[in-house]
Amino acid sequence: MLKVGIVGATGYAGEELIDILLGHPYVKITHLSAKIDRALAISEMFPRFKGRIDLICSQPQIKKVVSESEFIFLALPHTISMELVPELLGAGKRVVDLSADYRLKDTKIYEEFYKLKHKDKAHLGQAVYGLPELYRLKIKNAKLVANPGCYPTCAILALAPLVAFGCADINTVIIDAKSGATGAGRKAVEQLLFSEINEDFKAYKVNTHQHMPEIEQELSKLAGKKLKVTFVPHLLPINRGILETIYIKKNKGSRVSGKNIAALYKKFYKKEPFVRMKEEGLFPNIKDVAKNNFCDIGIRETENDIIIIAAIDNLIKGASGQAVQNMNIMCGFDESTSLL
Amino acid sequence: MLKVGIVGATGYAGEELIDILLGHPYVKITHLSAKIDRALAISEMFPRFKGRIDLICSQPQIKKVVSESEFIFLALPHTISMELVPELLGAGKRVVDLSADYRLKDTKIYEEFYKLKHKDKAHLGQAVYGLPELYRLKIKNAKLVANPGCYPTCAILALAPLVAFGCADINTVIIDAKSGATGAGRKAVEQLLFSEINEDFKAYKVNTHQHMPEIEQELSKLAGKKLKVTFVPHLLPINRGILETIYIKKNKGSRVSGKNIAALYKKFYKKEPFVRMKEEGLFPNIKDVAKNNFCDIGIRETENDIIIIAAIDNLIKGASGQAVQNMNIMCGFDESTSLL
Amino acid sequence: MLKVGIVGATGYAGEELIDILLGHPYVKITHLSAKIDRALAISEMFPRFKGRIDLICSQPQIKKVVSESEFIFLALPHTISMELVPELLGAGKRVVDLSADYRLKDTKIYEEFYKLKHKDKAHLGQAVYGLPELYRLKIKNAKLVANPGCYPTCAILALAPLVAFGCADINTVIIDAKSGATGAGRKAVEQLLFSEINEDFKAYKVNTHQHMPEIEQELSKLAGKKLKVTFVPHLLPINRGILETIYIKKNKGSRVSGKNIAALYKKFYKKEPFVRMKEEGLFPNIKDVAKNNFCDIGIRETENDIIIIAAIDNLIKGASGQAVQNMNIMCGFDESTSLL
Amino acid sequence: MLKVGIVGATGYAGEELIDILLGHPYVKITHLSAKIDRALAISEMFPRFKGRIDLICSQPQIKKVVSESEFIFLALPHTISMELVPELLGAGKRVVDLSADYRLKDTKIYEEFYKLKHKDKAHLGQAVYGLPELYRLKIKNAKLVANPGCYPTCAILALAPLVAFGCADINTVIIDAKSGATGAGRKAVEQLLFSEINEDFKAYKVNTHQHMPEIEQELSKLAGKKLKVTFVPHLLPINRGILETIYIKKNKGSRVSGKNIAALYKKFYKKEPFVRMKEEGLFPNIKDVAKNNFCDIGIRETENDIIIIAAIDNLIKGASGQAVQNMNIMCGFDESTSLL
Repeated sequence: MLKVGIVGATGYAGEELIDILLGHPYVKITHLSAKIDRALAISEMFPRFKGRIDLICSQPQIKKVVSESEFIFLALPHTISMELVPELLGAGKRVVDLSADYRLKDTKIYEEFYKLKHKDKAHLGQAVYGLPELYRLKIKNAKLVANPGCYPTCAILALAPLVAFGCADINTVIIDAKSGATGAGRKAVEQLLFSEINEDFKAYKVNTHQHMPEIEQELSKLAGKKLKVTFVPHLLPINRGILETIYIKKNKGSRVSGKNIAALYKKFYKKEPFVRMKEEGLFPNIKDVAKNNFCDIGIRETENDIIIIAAIDNLIKGASGQAVQNMNIMCGFDESTSLL
Repeated sequence: MLKVGIVGATGYAGEELIDILLGHPYVKITHLSAKIDRALAISEMFPRFKGRIDLICSQPQIKKVVSESEFIFLALPHTISMELVPELLGAGKRVVDLSADYRLKDTKIYEEFYKLKHKDKAHLGQAVYGLPELYRLKIKNAKLVANPGCYPTCAILALAPLVAFGCADINTVIIDAKSGATGAGRKAVEQLLFSEINEDFKAYKVNTHQHMPEIEQELSKLAGKKLKVTFVPHLLPINRGILETIYIKKNKGSRVSGKNIAALYKKFYKKEPFVRMKEEGLFPNIKDVAKNNFCDIGIRETENDIIIIAAIDNLIKGASGQAVQNMNIMCGFDESTSLL
Repeated sequence: MLKVGIVGATGYAGEELIDILLGHPYVKITHLSAKIDRALAISEMFPRFKGRIDLICSQPQIKKVVSESEFIFLALPHTISMELVPELLGAGKRVVDLSADYRLKDTKIYEEFYKLKHKDKAHLGQAVYGLPELYRLKIKNAKLVANPGCYPTCAILALAPLVAFGCADINTVIIDAKSGATGAGRKAVEQLLFSEINEDFKAYKVNTHQHMPEIEQELSKLAGKKLKVTFVPHLLPINRGILETIYIKKNKGSRVSGKNIAALYKKFYKKEPFVRMKEEGLFPNIKDVAKNNFCDIGIRETENDIIIIAAIDNLIKGASGQAVQNMNIMCGFDESTSLL
Repeated sequence: MLKVGIVGATGYAGEELIDILLGHPYVKITHLSAKIDRALAISEMFPRFKGRIDLICSQPQIKKVVSESEFIFLALPHTISMELVPELLGAGKRVVDLSADYRLKDTKIYEEFYKLKHKDKAHLGQAVYGLPELYRLKIKNAKLVANPGCYPTCAILALAPLVAFGCADINTVIIDAKSGATGAGRKAVEQLLFSEINEDFKAYKVNTHQHMPEIEQELSKLAGKKLKVTFVPHLLPINRGILETIYIKKNKGSRVSGKNIAALYKKFYKKEPFVRMKEEGLFPNIKDVAKNNFCDIGIRETENDIIIIAAIDNLIKGASGQAVQNMNIMCGFDESTSLL
C-alpha cells in the first residue's frame, strides 16, 4: 500500500481527495494536514467520513509530511505550494500539486495574473502539466505534476483536436464558462454566502481570469503558435460542475464539415477512458459528469461557427479526480483505479 | 378604472400579471380564464393571492372575455392566441398578446420554427412588436401588441445601439443565453422536475431555438439588412431571470473604442426608465433584475471582441412587466405605473 | 412626507426595509447608515435599487441620524441598538428597533441568552412588543417598538388563540421550526457559504435558541401563567421564509374538537389584515407568504395532538414588513400601506 | 459473479441501484427493465453511465427477468411488485422488493392506506422486513425481503433502542420528517416541477402518510404492544436526504437521563456498520449522509422531552443502499460491500 499524504486536506479539493482515496485499493492515507487552528480528527471536521477514516488532521509541518508519506498531494492555495515543493522533491517524494504554482511556464505571466513573485523557478522546468490526455507519457516519469485548473481542463479537452489539427480559425476562440460554487473554494466572504449566490447568476473576472493564460499556453503549444482566447467565466448556483460553451469561427474556405469534426474528435479520444463524445445532436449536462471523472463533449456546427460544449465536475476531473488519475499513472496503477 | 381581462391566468406569466396588476392604481382585473378542469377562485389556485383578489378563474369563453373586459392580456401558448385575436379586435378591444403568434412578420419563418400554419395573417400587419425602447410611438396607437419573447427582449436591448450604428461586425453575433426554469412554462414533463433541474445545467435547442428568428428579425430591421446570429440557450437551476453574454467581433480597422461604445449606449438609453447601464468594469447580476422590470447592461472590450452582458427577469421585463408597460403606453398611463 | 431613517441599511432586513419603503406613498427615506468601510451610494451597494433611490449610505453618526430623520428604524445586531435608543428617544424621535434589545422584559433572561449585560434598562419598560395582532393599541401610542423576532412572530401567531383560551395542554408545546438562510444575517462565516448550505438541511441550537424565551414570554402572558416550550430550529436551503410545525397535546377530557379550534382561530383573526386561515385539510407553503406580509395558518387534529402549521416570510412579516406595519400604526397611516 | 436483474431500472431508486451495483465486485447486472416506450441502452437514458455499463433496458417480461437473473431487485411502484413476486419466487429466485407491497403484515391497513386490494397474501408471511439492524438473521435466510420505506428506516432506527427498552412514554411519539424531492419519485406532475419546489417548503399528507402504519407496525413489535405515532412529512427543496426530528415525552418519574439514553443507543448500535451516534451536543446534517449508506443519530434531552434527530439518504439507506445491504446479507457477502 502506497502511503499518501494530503496537505490542504480541509478545502473542497482536499475533502474530495480523501473521499476518492478511501476507495482506492492500493493506497493508504497516512498524513493529513491543513492550515487549521488546532489538530483535529478529520472525521470530526467532516462527519461524513466517520466510520471510514480515523486520522488526525494536523497543522502542516514539512518534516511530518515527509516522514509520514511516500506520495504527496498539495491541495493548497497558490503561493503556498511553491514553498513546500523544493523540500518534498529534495526528500525524494513524488508530488501532485493542485495549485497553480507550477502550471504556467512563463513566470512573467504567472506574476501578472497571480500578483506575486514566483519563488521556485528552479523546479518549474521539471513540472509536468497533468492532463493525461495530452501528456500521459511525461506524467508517467514525473516527480512533480502540476494538476491543471478546472476551467482549463474542460477548455483544453474541448478544443485540443480542433486546435491541434487546425480545423478552425484558432484566433477566434470564445469560451463562455459556467462553474458551480465550490470552484471558488471554502472562503468565508460575503459574495459566497448562500443567500447571495442562490437564485442568482453572474459573470465575473470577465476576460481577466487567471485560468485564461493557462488555457492559452496549452492551446498555443497544440497549435504550434501563440494564440489568444476570449474567456468569460460565470458563477452557477450549484455545488459542483463546469459547463463550457465554446465558439470558434470556421476556417474560411475550409471543407471541414461537422461530420469530419465529430469523426476527428472520436478518433482523437478513442482510447481515452475519461472523455466521452456525445452523439450528433446531443450535448453534455453537468449532472452526467457530477461525482465522476468524465469529460463529456458535444459538437454542433452553424454556418459560420463551430460550437463545442463540454462538461466536467470541477472537483473531480477538474481537480481531485484528475490528481488521482495522475497518481495512478505515476505509480503504474490502472489509470482509472478508484475513478469509475 | 380600466377593466382588464387575463386569458391564460394560470401559467407563470398569467400569475405574474395578476400580481403586477393588483398593484396598479388605474386598472381592475375583471376577468380571469384559463384552460382548467373547472372554474375555481384564483385565490384557491394561488393561495398567495388570498386577501388581495376575490375572482373566479373560469374556462375561456370568448363572449365572457369580451363582455367582462375592456383591455385584454393573452398569456397563452402560441397557436391559441391567434384563434382569439380576430374576435377580440372585432369587438373593439385592445390586446397585448404574450405568445409568439404575432411577433414574426414572415409567416414562413413562423411556420418553420413553430411547426404549424399561421391562422391569422390578416392581423399580423397591424400587430406592433411591443418593445417600448424601440417602438414606443407605434405601441401608443396600437390595437394589438405582440409582446416580445424573453430571450429576444434581452438580446435586442443588449445589441440595439451597436447594431443600429454599425459599430461592430454585425455578422458575427454570438448570444450565449441562460434562463431560469419558469421560462419553460408550467408544463408537467419529466425534464422539468425539480430533481432533474436542481444541481444541473445544460444547453438546449442549440442554435435551433424559436426565439432566434425573432432576434434576427429585429436586429436586421435595426441594421437595415439581413443578419444571422448564433444563439445557444441554457437552463439555469433558478426560478426566474435571464442573463445573456453576447460576443461580437469589432469592425476591422474601426476606431470605435470601449469608451465610445459605453457612451453610445448611455446616450441611446438616456431617457429609458427601464434600461440601466453598468459603470465600466461592472456587469449585471440576475439578482439585481429579479422581481423588477429593469434590463441591466454591461460592456467590456477585448482585443478582437466586444462583450455585452445583459440581464432581465424573464417573467417581468421578459413577459408580464413589459406587457403592463405596453398597456401603460397604450392607455396613456405613466409608463412605469406599477412597475417601480 | 414622513422623513425616515434606517440605521443598519446594509443587512438583509435593512435592504428589505428600503424596498418596502420605496413603495410607500407617505414616507421618504432621508437617512441611511451602516457599519461600512466608507460612505457609498446605496444603489452602488445594491444595484437593484438603481433608478429608484439616490442616497448615500454613511457610517452611523447619531447626530446625522437625528437631524435627517423623524422616524427611525434600527436594523442592527443586538447590543448596538441599545446604545443608540436613549439618544434617539431623547431627541423626540419615534423608533422601531428590529433587534432583540428591547423584546425581553426580564433582563436576566436577556443576559443569559445574549451573553452580555443589558445597557438600557431605563427604556425597557416603555418598549412595546410590536406584534400588531396582540398589541395594536399600545403600538399606536408607542415611542419605542421592539419589533418581534422572526421565529416568535410565526410561533406566537400560530399559538395565540389556543393558549389564550386554554384549549390545549399548554405545557406540551413543541415547535419544530424551519427557516431560510437570510435568517442568519449577512455574515461572512464558513457555515453560511453556498456550498455548505445548498443541498443540506440540519437542526441547530436545539432547544437553546435565543428566540425561545421570547416565545415563552409572550405565550406566558397570553396564558396568564409561566409556560415553557420545546423549540428546535432548522436551516432550510432557501433564501427566505419560515415554516413552523407545532404540536400540542389536547387537554385531557376536553371536548374541544378540531372544528371548534378552527372556528376559534377564524374568530380570533377575523379582522386581521395579515393573518390568513387555511381551509380544513389545507396547510401553508412558504411560497405563498414569500415576499408578502401574510402569516398563513393551518390546523389538523390527531387523536392526542393538535398540529398547527404556520408560515411567514422571515424578512417581511418576520422583520421589515412588520416594522413598516408598526410604523403605519404609530403614524396613523392605513395599516397595510405598502404591504399589499 | 452473481447475475442480478433490476426491474424498474429507470426510477430514482433503480438508477441508484445500478450505480451501487456497478461498484460491487461480486455481482454483474445482467437484466434491466422498466415500463418504457421502447427498449433502449441504459447509457442512453442515463448518459452518466456511459463507459460503465453497456446493457439494453427492455420492457418488463417475466420470462426474460427469470432467464437473465439469479437475484432480482424490484424497484417498482407498489401494486406492480405483487404481480411479479409469485412467479419469481416460483422460479426459485431471491427477491428484494423496494415497494411497499410486502411491508405491512396487516392487509387491512395496506388496503386502507394504499387504496387497493392486496393480491398476494400467500407470500406476505414469508417476506422479511429488510431492516438489517433489527432482522439480520431472518434476512440471511429470506427468499423475499420487503425493503423498508425511506421515512420508516430513519424513524425506526432513531427510535428502536428507546422503544425496545421502554425508556420513554412511547404513546407520545411525534415524528417531524423532512425529505428531498427524489422521495416523490420521477413523476411528471405539476407539483414536482422545479419552479414549484425550488425556494418553497411545505408539509404534506399531514398525519395521513402511507409510511405511518409501517412505522407503527415496527415500533409496536419492538414495544411489545400497539402504539400510534404522530407523523408529519415535509418536502425539502433538495434532491436527496431525509432528516427526522422526533419528540417523545419522558416517562413520568423515570430516572433515565440523557447520558443513560446516549449510552443505551451506543450499546444498541455498537456493532452496526451503518449507524453512527453523534457525540453529545452534536446533531446530524443531511450532507453527512448524502451519497452514503449511513444513518446518523443525535439526542438531546429537555425537561420533559427527549429529542432524537436522525438523517439518512432516502435513495441509499432509505432505498437502494439498504437493498444492496440486504442482498449482501442474503448472499453471504460482506455486509458493507460496495456501500463504503
